[in-house]
Amino acid sequence: MAVSSAPPRARALLQQCLASRLQAFHWYFKMRQKPVTPQQKIQRGLVIYICFFKGASEELIPKMVNTLLNVKLSETESGKYVSLLDLPGNLLIIPQATLGGRLKGRNMQYHSNIEKEKGMELYSHFVTLCEKELAANTKCAEAGVVVKYGTYGNRQVLKLDTNGPFTHMIEF
Amino acid sequence: MAVSSAPPRARALLQQCLASRLQAFHWYFKMRQKPVTPQQKIQRGLVIYICFFKGASEELIPKMVNTLLNVKLSETESGKYVSLLDLPGNLLIIPQATLGGRLKGRNMQYHSNIEKEKGMELYSHFVTLCEKELAANTKCAEAGVVVKYGTYGNRQVLKLDTNGPFTHMIEF
Repeated sequence: MAVSSAPPRARALLQQCLASRLQAFHWYFKMRQKPVTPQQKIQRGLVIYICFFKGASEELIPKMVNTLLNVKLSETESGKYVSLLDLPGNLLIIPQATLGGRLKGRNMQYHSNIEKEKGMELYSHFVTLCEKELAANTKCAEAGVVVKYGTYGNRQVLKLDTNGPFTHMIEF
Repeated sequence: MAVSSAPPRARALLQQCLASRLQAFHWYFKMRQKPVTPQQKIQRGLVIYICFFKGASEELIPKMVNTLLNVKLSETESGKYVSLLDLPGNLLIIPQATLGGRLKGRNMQYHSNIEKEKGMELYSHFVTLCEKELAANTKCAEAGVVVKYGTYGNRQVLKLDTNGPFTHMIEF
């Protein structure tokens, strides 16, 4: 059975977490040099890895943010699955261009990925809109949940602690 | 532009790690009960999350294992990317049926996923072949690298520590 569909314009990967910590570093050989940003640390919530493909544009962002913040993939203490907004949970966003790779022989190629400048713009817009939505949500605001995020194009050191990786992919 | 292709029969997600630890638990409400298996712990290497779709069969496994162990996604100390076999690195395999989910409204559905019994068989075959390939590889055998894996259908507690999540998806 063949599937005919337009290629995706963005790919998101979601993982629940109990805690997660990300820090971007300047890298020199195998050594972590000075950090680019303060440590991005969250407690219970969601880690979203994000990648944009060629053809992605600003119009896509509100739909992505709406879907990702409302999809019921966050487990409550009683074992029910609700949205991140309803949990309410923290959010760690990680730019992850490698998610756009396609296998060619023994290597991955990234020809479908968006140009770096445009990707940075979309990523920044995505982060801003997530922050806005969480701030506007009463439950989230009352619980004091936070949005943290990695920087585009830097080496990022990640620590992830989860009660079940529960990994989902959503394409747009 | 429309893309016409057969739907995938398996999906693998790869992440480099400096260290990773997985343990399957029986779960009772929010509590971790007794562990199902000993802790599955690896040092530097690769974490592979794996999901099978309907239509996947045994013939697929050798191709998958060959591709995943040979794709150049493992970073050496000098910053070059080589295969897991060439690193040589350890392997942690995590069954991850949620990777087959598709968004429907605000929920994920898993209608394309393989039946549980068949999935367990394929998963077990996949793990066995990975173990065999690493054991047969001189570099890996000399370095004493290990294959660890999660159990199918159990809640799994994961800790991941990475110098860059460097997440790739490969479909078969």
